[in-house]
Amino acid sequence: MFELGVVYRNITRADRAATDELARFGASTVHEAQGRVGLLKPYMRPIWAGARISGTAVTVLMHPGDNWMLHVVAEQIRLGDIVVAALTSESTDGFFGDLLATSFRARGALGLVIDGGCRDVRDLTEMQFPVWSRAISSKGTIKATLGSVNIPVVCAGALVTPGDALVADDDGVVVVPAARVRQVADAAAAREANEGEKRARLAAGVLGLDMYKMREPLAAAGLKYID
Amino acid sequence: MFELGVVYRNITRADRAATDELARFGASTVHEAQGRVGLLKPYMRPIWAGARISGTAVTVLMHPGDNWMLHVVAEQIRLGDIVVAALTSESTDGFFGDLLATSFRARGALGLVIDGGCRDVRDLTEMQFPVWSRAISSKGTIKATLGSVNIPVVCAGALVTPGDALVADDDGVVVVPAARVRQVADAAAAREANEGEKRARLAAGVLGLDMYKMREPLAAAGLKYID
Amino acid sequence: MFELGVVYRNITRADRAATDELARFGASTVHEAQGRVGLLKPYMRPIWAGARISGTAVTVLMHPGDNWMLHVVAEQIRLGDIVVAALTSESTDGFFGDLLATSFRARGALGLVIDGGCRDVRDLTEMQFPVWSRAISSKGTIKATLGSVNIPVVCAGALVTPGDALVADDDGVVVVPAARVRQVADAAAAREANEGEKRARLAAGVLGLDMYKMREPLAAAGLKYID
Amino acid sequence: MFELGVVYRNITRADRAATDELARFGASTVHEAQGRVGLLKPYMRPIWAGARISGTAVTVLMHPGDNWMLHVVAEQIRLGDIVVAALTSESTDGFFGDLLATSFRARGALGLVIDGGCRDVRDLTEMQFPVWSRAISSKGTIKATLGSVNIPVVCAGALVTPGDALVADDDGVVVVPAARVRQVADAAAAREANEGEKRARLAAGVLGLDMYKMREPLAAAGLKYID
Amino acid sequence: MFELGVVYRNITRADRAATDELARFGASTVHEAQGRVGLLKPYMRPIWAGARISGTAVTVLMHPGDNWMLHVVAEQIRLGDIVVAALTSESTDGFFGDLLATSFRARGALGLVIDGGCRDVRDLTEMQFPVWSRAISSKGTIKATLGSVNIPVVCAGALVTPGDALVADDDGVVVVPAARVRQVADAAAAREANEGEKRARLAAGVLGLDMYKMREPLAAAGLKYID
Amino acid sequence: MFELGVVYRNITRADRAATDELARFGASTVHEAQGRVGLLKPYMRPIWAGARISGTAVTVLMHPGDNWMLHVVAEQIRLGDIVVAALTSESTDGFFGDLLATSFRARGALGLVIDGGCRDVRDLTEMQFPVWSRAISSKGTIKATLGSVNIPVVCAGALVTPGDALVADDDGVVVVPAARVRQVADAAAAREANEGEKRARLAAGVLGLDMYKMREPLAAAGLKYID
Repeated sequence: MFELGVVYRNITRADRAATDELARFGASTVHEAQGRVGLLKPYMRPIWAGARISGTAVTVLMHPGDNWMLHVVAEQIRLGDIVVAALTSESTDGFFGDLLATSFRARGALGLVIDGGCRDVRDLTEMQFPVWSRAISSKGTIKATLGSVNIPVVCAGALVTPGDALVADDDGVVVVPAARVRQVADAAAAREANEGEKRARLAAGVLGLDMYKMREPLAAAGLKYID
Repeated sequence: MFELGVVYRNITRADRAATDELARFGASTVHEAQGRVGLLKPYMRPIWAGARISGTAVTVLMHPGDNWMLHVVAEQIRLGDIVVAALTSESTDGFFGDLLATSFRARGALGLVIDGGCRDVRDLTEMQFPVWSRAISSKGTIKATLGSVNIPVVCAGALVTPGDALVADDDGVVVVPAARVRQVADAAAAREANEGEKRARLAAGVLGLDMYKMREPLAAAGLKYID
Repeated sequence: MFELGVVYRNITRADRAATDELARFGASTVHEAQGRVGLLKPYMRPIWAGARISGTAVTVLMHPGDNWMLHVVAEQIRLGDIVVAALTSESTDGFFGDLLATSFRARGALGLVIDGGCRDVRDLTEMQFPVWSRAISSKGTIKATLGSVNIPVVCAGALVTPGDALVADDDGVVVVPAARVRQVADAAAAREANEGEKRARLAAGVLGLDMYKMREPLAAAGLKYID
Repeated sequence: MFELGVVYRNITRADRAATDELARFGASTVHEAQGRVGLLKPYMRPIWAGARISGTAVTVLMHPGDNWMLHVVAEQIRLGDIVVAALTSESTDGFFGDLLATSFRARGALGLVIDGGCRDVRDLTEMQFPVWSRAISSKGTIKATLGSVNIPVVCAGALVTPGDALVADDDGVVVVPAARVRQVADAAAAREANEGEKRARLAAGVLGLDMYKMREPLAAAGLKYID
Repeated sequence: MFELGVVYRNITRADRAATDELARFGASTVHEAQGRVGLLKPYMRPIWAGARISGTAVTVLMHPGDNWMLHVVAEQIRLGDIVVAALTSESTDGFFGDLLATSFRARGALGLVIDGGCRDVRDLTEMQFPVWSRAISSKGTIKATLGSVNIPVVCAGALVTPGDALVADDDGVVVVPAARVRQVADAAAAREANEGEKRARLAAGVLGLDMYKMREPLAAAGLKYID
Repeated sequence: MFELGVVYRNITRADRAATDELARFGASTVHEAQGRVGLLKPYMRPIWAGARISGTAVTVLMHPGDNWMLHVVAEQIRLGDIVVAALTSESTDGFFGDLLATSFRARGALGLVIDGGCRDVRDLTEMQFPVWSRAISSKGTIKATLGSVNIPVVCAGALVTPGDALVADDDGVVVVPAARVRQVADAAAAREANEGEKRARLAAGVLGLDMYKMREPLAAAGLKYID
C-alpha cells in the first residue's frame, strides 16, 4: 500500500492443489466456507459470462490513467497466477486490452482482476481471457509514473497479499489468504457434499422451515401468523 | 411497511387469467397501458437475458444482510406467484441462491424480484429461474432478525401490495394493482393490436411525423426548420 | 446547446469512406489514434453485445421524459447516419423502442446513441438494431416540449457536432470531428498494421518490457527490484 | 401511486398534539421508537443545517421536470402540514424555489420533503424555510402534465399516506402512520427519559459493555480476547 | 475538445458589464432567463456556502490526476475571469489547493469551476476563494502530461467556450454564450423586476393557481377534485 | 480482515509526538509528504466542518446493520486514539450516535472514522465530537453478530493496521503506517516550511510557470502557444 517504485520478485504462493480446487466450488461457496469475509465489492463484474477460475495473486498498484506497471508485472507472472490490479485513486480508464492479455496468457496468467477499466472486450471474449473489472472503457492510458508490484494492495475494498488465492466467477471475486487455502478448500468441499441431498429434498417440496428446523426459533423470536 | 414479525397467510390474488396475459405484452407495453406508473426503478436488472414472466405478488420485508424471512415466505407461495422482496435499508448482499430457487420453484413460484443482491447466477441461469435484482454478490446473509410476509412493501421505489400482478422482462418490472389487472390487460391488448399496422407503415418509410399527425402541433409549439 | 425549437436540415457529413473505415478498427483503436480524446463516458453501454458500427451523426436535444423530437429527427436521417440523442437534464426514462427503431432503420440509420433510457430491448436485439444508452427502462415518455435537431450537443460528456463521425462497439462510443476523420482513420490503420506482429511476439512470451524498451526508462524513474 | 389527475381534498390528519411532540425527539429517536421502519432513504438531505420539524403530510405526485402540481397542492395545505413530493421517475431538476416557499408558508406549511431537486437555496435559508431534497439544481421545470394530490406516494423509498406524521432533521426524514403517532410519541418519550442517566454514566467512563450487560452474551456468541 | 498541447492566448471575452450583472440575479434566475439551458450538472457543488460570482471563462483541459495545465492557465487569467477546468476522463483527485488559489487571485480570477476534486478546503474558505467542484480530496496530482488552454471544453456536461460568461452560486453553475450575455442579463432583470410583486401576493395567501390563472388549463387537462 | 470474533487488547501505537504533529499539517500536506498514498476514498466526509485531528487507530470490523462491536471497541480506547470502523459489506445505517460518542470521549477517543452511517448529527456537532462517515442516517442497528477489534481492516479503500496514525480534516482522512510517522511528520514540516515563501511570491503575481521553472519542460513536451 505504501511503497511506490518497487518490484518484489520472490513471493510465496498459496498451495497449488488447494488453490486449484477452489474453482470447482465457485466464489459464493468459498466465501461462505471462509466465514463470509474476503469478497471484493460487488461492482466488480466479469466482462463476459461463464468464466470460473482460481489462482494465486500477483499484485500491482498503479496510478489512475497510467498502466506502465502492467508491463512490469507481466514478467513476474507464473503459470496459475491471477493478476490483481489496484489503483491509488478511482479511475474507469481502459488499462488493459488484448495485447496485454496475449502477453499475460503467454506468461501463464489465468485472468485479471482490476479495480479500473478494461477494453477490447470483443477480442478478450473471443480469446476467452477472463477479466473482472469495475468498468469498460476505450480510454487508453499513459506510461509515465511508477507504482509497485507484489506489495499488499486493496482491490475493490479487499486486502490482497501477493501469493493469496483467488476464486472468481459470475458471482464475484473472493480472496483467500495463502495460509488458509487448504482449510477453506476442505470446508467448501464439505459444504458442497452437503448440498446435493438438501437440493433434492427442497425440489420435492420440503420447506427450509422444516429442513433447517426454523419454526421454533422463529416463534421464539416472536413471529406471528395471521389468517 | 410498518409491521415487523407478522405473516399474513390469506391474501387476495389478482385475477389469474388477466395476470397471465400480461407476460404476452411485456413490461413496457403494460406500463404504457397503465398510464406510465408502477415501474420499479431501472436499477433492477434481470440476472440473465430473455425471461418474461407475469404473476401474483407474495411479499417479504427483510433487514439488510438477513435472509431468514425468505424461508418463511416460501411456505406462502402458490403456483403462479412471484416473490417480491424488499429491505428496510439498502444492501447488495446475496440473499438468494440456487437452493432457495429450488424450493421456490417446487412451491410454484415463477421468479423473484429482490431489492438486494442475488448469487449462484450460473446455477440460476442453468435452472432458467428468473431473478430481477439490484446487484449480484457472493456475500451470504445471516438468519437472525424478523421481518414480515405479505404486508405492503416498497420495492425499488414502487409500492407492491400482496396479490398485485407483476410483469417482468429485460425492460424492467411493472406492478399492476390487483383491482386493475383486467382493465390493464385489455388496454395492453388494444395497444398491441394497434402496433402491427404502425410497424409496417414505419418500416415502409412513413414518418411518425405524418402517421401521428405531429407536424401541426410542432409548428404550433414554434418549431422552426432552417435550411 | 443553446437553441431550442430549431431543426437544421442541411448539415455537412464527414467523409463517407473514411467514416466507414472506422468500424473496422473499433472504438478503442480509434480513440487511441485520435490522441485519447472524444470518448463518451463509460456509463454508455450497448443494449446487446457484439455490435460494431461507424456512421455520421445527426443530433437531437430533448427534455427529460419527452421524446417528441425523436420523431422530428427521423425525417433528417440519411443512409449511414447514427442518431445521437442528448438531454437537457438527466433521465433514465425509456425514450426509444422498437417502433422508432423500425422507422429509423427505414430511413437509413445504423444505430442510436442516447444519453437516456431505452426499452423494448428484446425486440431491438431480435432486430439487431444497435443502441448505446445509459439505462434500460420501461418508463415511456410524453410528447409535449420542443428541443432541437442538428445543433451541437453534449452527449455523455462529449461534444458532438452534426456530421461528425462516430464509432461504437462493446468498448464504448467515440466521436471524431468531421474534419479529422480521414487523418484518424489513417492513424488507426497504421496502429492496427503494427499490432499483428506485436501480438505474435507477445504470444511467444516476449515481454512488453523488452519489446517496448521500457527497462531503461523504468530504471531512470527509480524502479527497484527486490529479490 | 396509480391514479393520475386527481386531487383529494379531504384527508384525515394524524393527531396534532402527538405529531407536534415528534419534533422534540428528532428523526433518529422516533425511528428507533417505531421499530426501525419508516425512514426515507439517506440521500434525502436538508438544504440548510439545524432545522427540526414535525407535521402532517399532504402529498403530491409529479412527473420529472414538471412542477405544475406544486401549485395545486398549495391550496390543500393547512397549518401544521409538511408537503411530501414524489416523482414518477428520477429527476434532480429544481422543482421548488423561494416563490413557492412564500406561498406554502402563507398557507401554513412547515416545510417540504421532495424526492427531486430544489433551488433558490440562499433565499430559502434566509427565509428559514426547511427543505429536504435529493439534489440542488438551478434547472427549472415546465407546467404541462398532471399528477395527483393527496394520494399515497412512495417518496425516497418510503410509503407516505396523506395525513401521516413526519419528523425531519439533520439525521433524515421519518414517516409515522397516522394511526400510530400517539403510540410512537409515547415510546419516543420513554426512550428519551431513559437516556439522560445513561449519558451521565457513559460520560463518567462506565462502559456500555457493563451498563447494557453485554459481556455475557458476547462471550456466549464466542468473542475471544487476545493479549 | 480535440486539440491537446495548445494554449490560445487571445480570446474574446463576453461583455464585461453584462457579465457582471449576472451575479446579481444568481444561477437559477439566469438559467431560467436563458430558456433553461446551460446548467452544469448538479453534482457540481460549492466548497463553501454563500458565494455568488459571475465572470468570463478561461478554460483548461487536463488528464485525470495531472494538474500541470493549471499552472499554464494561470498566466492567461485576466481580472474578472473564472477558470473552468475539464478532464478527459473522470477523476476526484485534488487538482487545486490554496497555493494555486493565491496565484489565481493574484492574476485576477474570481473563482474556479472544476470537474474534478479540490483540496485545502479550510484555507480556501478562509481566503473566501470560491470553488465549485465534483469532489473534495486530499489526493494530489502529478505534472506529466499536456492538456490545452482556452479551447472549448465540456465541463460537467456543459459546453464552455473561452470567453463565455458564467454565473455560480449555491444553486449551481450556469454558462451563458458570450454573444447572448446582454440579452440574458436583460431577460433576468425583467424576471427579477416581476418577482417582487408576486412574492408579496403569495405571502398574503393568494394562490399561484389564481395568480397564474392555472385553474382553467388544469381542468382542461382533466384534473378532478374529489371531496 | 479474515478473523471474526476476536479482540486484540495489546497493540503497538505509533509514536505519540509524531502522531500529534500531523494535525498541524492537515490531511492534504501529510498525504503529499507520504508520497500520495494512504488516502481514504473521498466519499468519506466530516459531519461538521472545521475539525482537524490526528491520533492512533483502534480498529473495529462489523457486519452491516449491526453495531454491537462499537461497545466492545470502546473498552480498548486510550487517550489519543481515533476509532476506525470498517464493514464486511456496504451499509449506510446509523451505527453511531451521541451516547456512543459520550462513551468514546470519556475513554479518550478524539474522533471516529466509519465506513458506514452516523446519526444524532446535531448533538455530535454541539459536542464537537468529530466523525468522518460515508452517510448520515437515522436508521439504527441491531446487536446480534460478532466482528473483531484491533485487526487490520480496509476502511473506505485504505488498509488500516491497529496503531497506525491517522490525520483527518475537511479534505479527508489519511492513514500513516506506525513505522513511518516520524519520517512523514518531518517531511510534512519541510513542505510546510517551504510554502510560506511560495505563497508570498504567488500572491505578488509571480507565476508558478516561472517559480517552478516549468516553461522548459512544457515546451519539451510540445506545448504550443497560439496568439
